[in-house]
Amino acid sequence: MAVQSLPPGQRPPNHPDLLSPIFWREGRVVMIDQRRLPDVELWNAYDTWEDVARAIAELEVRGAPAIGCAGAFAVALAAGKALSAASLRQHMRQIGEARPTAVNLGAAVHRMANAIASGRDPIGEAQAIWDDDLASCRAIGAHGAALLPDEGTVLTHCNAGALATAGYGTALGVIRAAIAAGKRIRVLCDETRPFLQGARLTAWELTQDGIPAEVIVDGAAAHFLSSGEVVAAVVGADRIARNGDVANKIGTLGVAAAASLFGVPFYVAAPHTTLDPGTNTGARIPIESRAATEITQLGERCIVPSAAGVRNPVFDVTPARLVKAIITETGVHQAPYTF
Amino acid sequence: MAVQSLPPGQRPPNHPDLLSPIFWREGRVVMIDQRRLPDVELWNAYDTWEDVARAIAELEVRGAPAIGCAGAFAVALAAGKALSAASLRQHMRQIGEARPTAVNLGAAVHRMANAIASGRDPIGEAQAIWDDDLASCRAIGAHGAALLPDEGTVLTHCNAGALATAGYGTALGVIRAAIAAGKRIRVLCDETRPFLQGARLTAWELTQDGIPAEVIVDGAAAHFLSSGEVVAAVVGADRIARNGDVANKIGTLGVAAAASLFGVPFYVAAPHTTLDPGTNTGARIPIESRAATEITQLGERCIVPSAAGVRNPVFDVTPARLVKAIITETGVHQAPYTF
Repeated sequence: MAVQSLPPGQRPPNHPDLLSPIFWREGRVVMIDQRRLPDVELWNAYDTWEDVARAIAELEVRGAPAIGCAGAFAVALAAGKALSAASLRQHMRQIGEARPTAVNLGAAVHRMANAIASGRDPIGEAQAIWDDDLASCRAIGAHGAALLPDEGTVLTHCNAGALATAGYGTALGVIRAAIAAGKRIRVLCDETRPFLQGARLTAWELTQDGIPAEVIVDGAAAHFLSSGEVVAAVVGADRIARNGDVANKIGTLGVAAAASLFGVPFYVAAPHTTLDPGTNTGARIPIESRAATEITQLGERCIVPSAAGVRNPVFDVTPARLVKAIITETGVHQAPYTF
Repeated sequence: MAVQSLPPGQRPPNHPDLLSPIFWREGRVVMIDQRRLPDVELWNAYDTWEDVARAIAELEVRGAPAIGCAGAFAVALAAGKALSAASLRQHMRQIGEARPTAVNLGAAVHRMANAIASGRDPIGEAQAIWDDDLASCRAIGAHGAALLPDEGTVLTHCNAGALATAGYGTALGVIRAAIAAGKRIRVLCDETRPFLQGARLTAWELTQDGIPAEVIVDGAAAHFLSSGEVVAAVVGADRIARNGDVANKIGTLGVAAAASLFGVPFYVAAPHTTLDPGTNTGARIPIESRAATEITQLGERCIVPSAAGVRNPVFDVTPARLVKAIITETGVHQAPYTF
């Protein structure tokens, strides 16, 4: 059987308390279908690389580190069944192309190829990639937790959580670590239009872990940042330039601007793989735009008149001056950044 | 026949070029059902005050000045049919209570009651209320248009347009007047979650008038304000405190914060009826919250997990220091405000 649906509440072996969107278990890749959340918790188990590649391409798994783990496991499955080195190379190329823009996917496939070429066990290497990502998230959490006060509301945008990584999360890892350290933190989740990762994913994974979470529309972030209630804003990053400018999901810049204006510390939590030494400043980061239908179609209804245009940039760039600190697995970094 | 559906493209008598959401024609109140926009342009003609009151209560007409006009016309219809002064007083009370929080509704009914008590023609008085609002919008437009450059993109939030007034609009009146003066203005419309007035209403009415309009998610406003493309942000107001603090649709504060940070002038366009001399500062303005379902339900789908909370404040307060000027029918005002 190529695909098997599993009951809710799956957890990775040896990590019974960890919410993880994708992990290896008994020769199969187990993953949660993130498109169906929060109303349906659908876990699938795959035993062919083609199924995992399709799951990556069709956004069943998302979040750059989680996609990297999926790609590594897909290569491990392919390596177990490939008839020749040439066919394995072709499979790896196909896996790497499942999401053309995810840097972590290419990096994971590259690391798997090197490991296989060196004669190492593919499954062991894929698991090591997963273990490394989890360890990185836990380290980010530990460093970041120290920055939060003993009690208060933290605001976050999009989903830089367990669901975007091997588990634990980056921005949400900071919150998990703070709570594990006994701090009383509650979370305001920007819903994050147009794809609603905040409402659908962040609120889901936090409440799965018993962390108090409330959803707000993106436009309400400034209101809550001005109210004195929010003690910090913590977000993830898609790419960080050498000067500390941060590219992240559209809407992040607005949170940073309001946080700056109202004196709320704005933190970015991201692994070192997000740092791009080849990019000097955020002005050099290209901003991808996606289909207008992401905005115009709300369920079955068209909410934008046909005569109007739509602009749908999916990332923005927050200048380093608005970022109080960048939290990575090596510690808490502040401008001027040397990392 | 109490209700009659009319073909698209209705315009008020003597104003063939004016998009107006509600007007008097041949003994009936003609209005567009704003709940159905932008996909359906449904015009209804009512000849009973009960139908107009129901239309107010059920949000077929929205926007404080437009609701005021609807209330005045409802009173005119009631006055034409009431069997006694006592029953007319009761009808007026019911009309005034159709939307308890709309200040303009109570004020319009009060003005109608005074006119009727003075022996003036109810239809004439209701039409005068409509005429006054339109004149006010045109004056706001003329004053505000002078503030815009000859060419550029203007960003707006929610709908402070023709659809919220007798016609022409306040914030969108400024844009219409600038274009009428030969300026080449295009508009970025924040979609304005949760109710999507920007996507559904602002984009619709601008494109009806041939004005170039593009819809963006609320989270993208800061990105465009930082890009150098936007020459001004212009919004309406629900209430303005004596010090110039502005209560308006949730999300306005975020636009003002980003505009301030990136040096884009942020203007508020509103009639004098919006000024509240009884409120010293914005801190005294109560912020209404509405039902969580406005956020959790997207069409048929629930996009927020049931274990998560929702916070749904529908207004925010922009401090006067972020407002470059307040444009009213009497001119352009700047801090310290005397109006």
